[in-house]
Amino acid sequence: MRTVDVVLGTRSYPIRVGSQLIGDPSLLAPYLKSRRVAVVTNEVVAPLYLDALLSGLHGIDVASTEIILPDGEVHKDWVSLNKIFDGLLDSRCERSTTLIALGGGVIGDMTGFAAATYQRGVPFIQIPTTLLSQVDSSVGGKTAINHPQGKNMIGAFYQPRIVLADIATLSSLPEKELRAGLAEVIKYGLIRDLPFLEWLEAHLERLLNRDPDALAYAVERCCINKAEVVAADETEQGERALLNLGHTFGHAIETGLGFGVWLHGEAVAAGTLMAAELSARLGMLTSQDVERVRRIFERAGLPTTGPLLGAERYIALMRHDKKVEAGRLRLILLNKIGQGVIHDTAPLQDIEAAINACCA
Amino acid sequence: MRTVDVVLGTRSYPIRVGSQLIGDPSLLAPYLKSRRVAVVTNEVVAPLYLDALLSGLHGIDVASTEIILPDGEVHKDWVSLNKIFDGLLDSRCERSTTLIALGGGVIGDMTGFAAATYQRGVPFIQIPTTLLSQVDSSVGGKTAINHPQGKNMIGAFYQPRIVLADIATLSSLPEKELRAGLAEVIKYGLIRDLPFLEWLEAHLERLLNRDPDALAYAVERCCINKAEVVAADETEQGERALLNLGHTFGHAIETGLGFGVWLHGEAVAAGTLMAAELSARLGMLTSQDVERVRRIFERAGLPTTGPLLGAERYIALMRHDKKVEAGRLRLILLNKIGQGVIHDTAPLQDIEAAINACCA
Repeated sequence: MRTVDVVLGTRSYPIRVGSQLIGDPSLLAPYLKSRRVAVVTNEVVAPLYLDALLSGLHGIDVASTEIILPDGEVHKDWVSLNKIFDGLLDSRCERSTTLIALGGGVIGDMTGFAAATYQRGVPFIQIPTTLLSQVDSSVGGKTAINHPQGKNMIGAFYQPRIVLADIATLSSLPEKELRAGLAEVIKYGLIRDLPFLEWLEAHLERLLNRDPDALAYAVERCCINKAEVVAADETEQGERALLNLGHTFGHAIETGLGFGVWLHGEAVAAGTLMAAELSARLGMLTSQDVERVRRIFERAGLPTTGPLLGAERYIALMRHDKKVEAGRLRLILLNKIGQGVIHDTAPLQDIEAAINACCA
Repeated sequence: MRTVDVVLGTRSYPIRVGSQLIGDPSLLAPYLKSRRVAVVTNEVVAPLYLDALLSGLHGIDVASTEIILPDGEVHKDWVSLNKIFDGLLDSRCERSTTLIALGGGVIGDMTGFAAATYQRGVPFIQIPTTLLSQVDSSVGGKTAINHPQGKNMIGAFYQPRIVLADIATLSSLPEKELRAGLAEVIKYGLIRDLPFLEWLEAHLERLLNRDPDALAYAVERCCINKAEVVAADETEQGERALLNLGHTFGHAIETGLGFGVWLHGEAVAAGTLMAAELSARLGMLTSQDVERVRRIFERAGLPTTGPLLGAERYIALMRHDKKVEAGRLRLILLNKIGQGVIHDTAPLQDIEAAINACCA
């Protein structure tokens, strides 16, 4: 088992990365506030891992409430959030009850937001079961639900007490979701870790073949990157925004098509190509650099073009992004391969051209 | 104009107490993050004070969006909260847009919660226009909405950047709401400020007659008390709970009858009598003390008995309170007049007897 620490003063916490962690209650026990938890999961994950988690907890006399939501990004909304609150109130969960998110990014984001707001805040633990949530969304305290007008529009910064990234869960992950997770893995290489990008270029097939050592290494390396960024800028006043490479374009795809039509990671992949294309138009990347970006996403089996919504519609959707400031689009671009940059002066015609170059 | 400072490190802020503050934009300007605000108010307050606020702001080139909600505790729910989010997104409000709550406790609590969660947090200003919100709910950062199973069950601790308590607004306040506000005013005297209680006993008629000097003094004195408690215990780990004298009983009344049937202050008045009655049964108050509590609420025109829900129903509703811990009711009682105490070992039969003694 490897440990990565997220250093945030009194809100610091460890990320444990390893295999078969879910069934080991001794990993969780020190982080519970009382002998009572509420586990939030979904219909797909529950049959796979809920029993292992609960029998471990019950074995150390921790009582549990279970809340099982429907699966998918389309359910990351008020309705599901209220199901969590109803479940907590029906079983009289108290301020000392610890909420445990068992699932992917949607479950983690919603459970975290429920924990941030139930009785004005209860303790919270993340047990991410997808590659995407293990490398990105479970770490750093961003929680949210979607609004029909924009992804993750309603939420809070609220840190977990511990994150358990159990690599064993990745063996059951559908191929499509494994690939979607790789989009966020590749992102760290592109924005701030060139040696890791080179490692990925050398070892991508091992990840696609689910080699446990390669997966554990990649998850740990991503978490180290994420922990550094979050420790430096918890509430995204600056540097943390770099983690959104491809996300403003990607959110336009997700919102424009309807949540859940594309997986988040798929939209981020196509969005990253748009960002790379725009970076090239602004003279920051060469066309060879753009090809390099395209190649790694293609090898990961990810889309490198977005749906044909029309550039105008993309831009209208992007204007609803949280990074808009004084009406200006703030985009994350690449200064060079391995170095992201916040950019808010790209001419509209270049943004449109980059979108058009990456739509099919 | 008087100023009370709430000292909370980087989240410190001033409360300004005075007359005709709403129309003076120079009081707000230093606390805006950009030249854009969204004012949230209700159908009753908007015709009275919205124009004065907006013309001041427009005069210093601050652009505004207005969101006008229906009035009343029954609307402190998801539906109204989503109306705020819809309004913010429809006008493309950004992370730097400042939300201004113009209204009573319901508007302040909901706008604060919207500010805490819109795009994971935007700046927030309170302009309370009722006595209750000026002396209590606008100060200290508690924000929330109700859930059918319990009052203020979903919320966040989120501090405003400034509070403007404009005493002039109290001249338009319905008699019933002025009296309801006095319940929270009296509370400060009972739990921690005996000299203020004595002042109230001597000057209650001046407050009922809306003497501006007496109102300004009372609002300032309450804010000083509240600021001290909040500075010592922002997230209610201990002492802050004392501010909930009468509230656990009172929330049972509000939830049991349906939100909005009784005003919050009315329920707190009857609930405080129950707490005083229970304190006497536990040997902390004399029967003369209880009469003294009853007398001041009666003089303020507030109810001193609760509705006949039956003691069992009261207790079932109270068990949903946020202060329940390990299944135990934690109640705020009076150790003596002028000194509140957190108490969690009252025998159930005494709680029932206190409720029955105060229901009619």
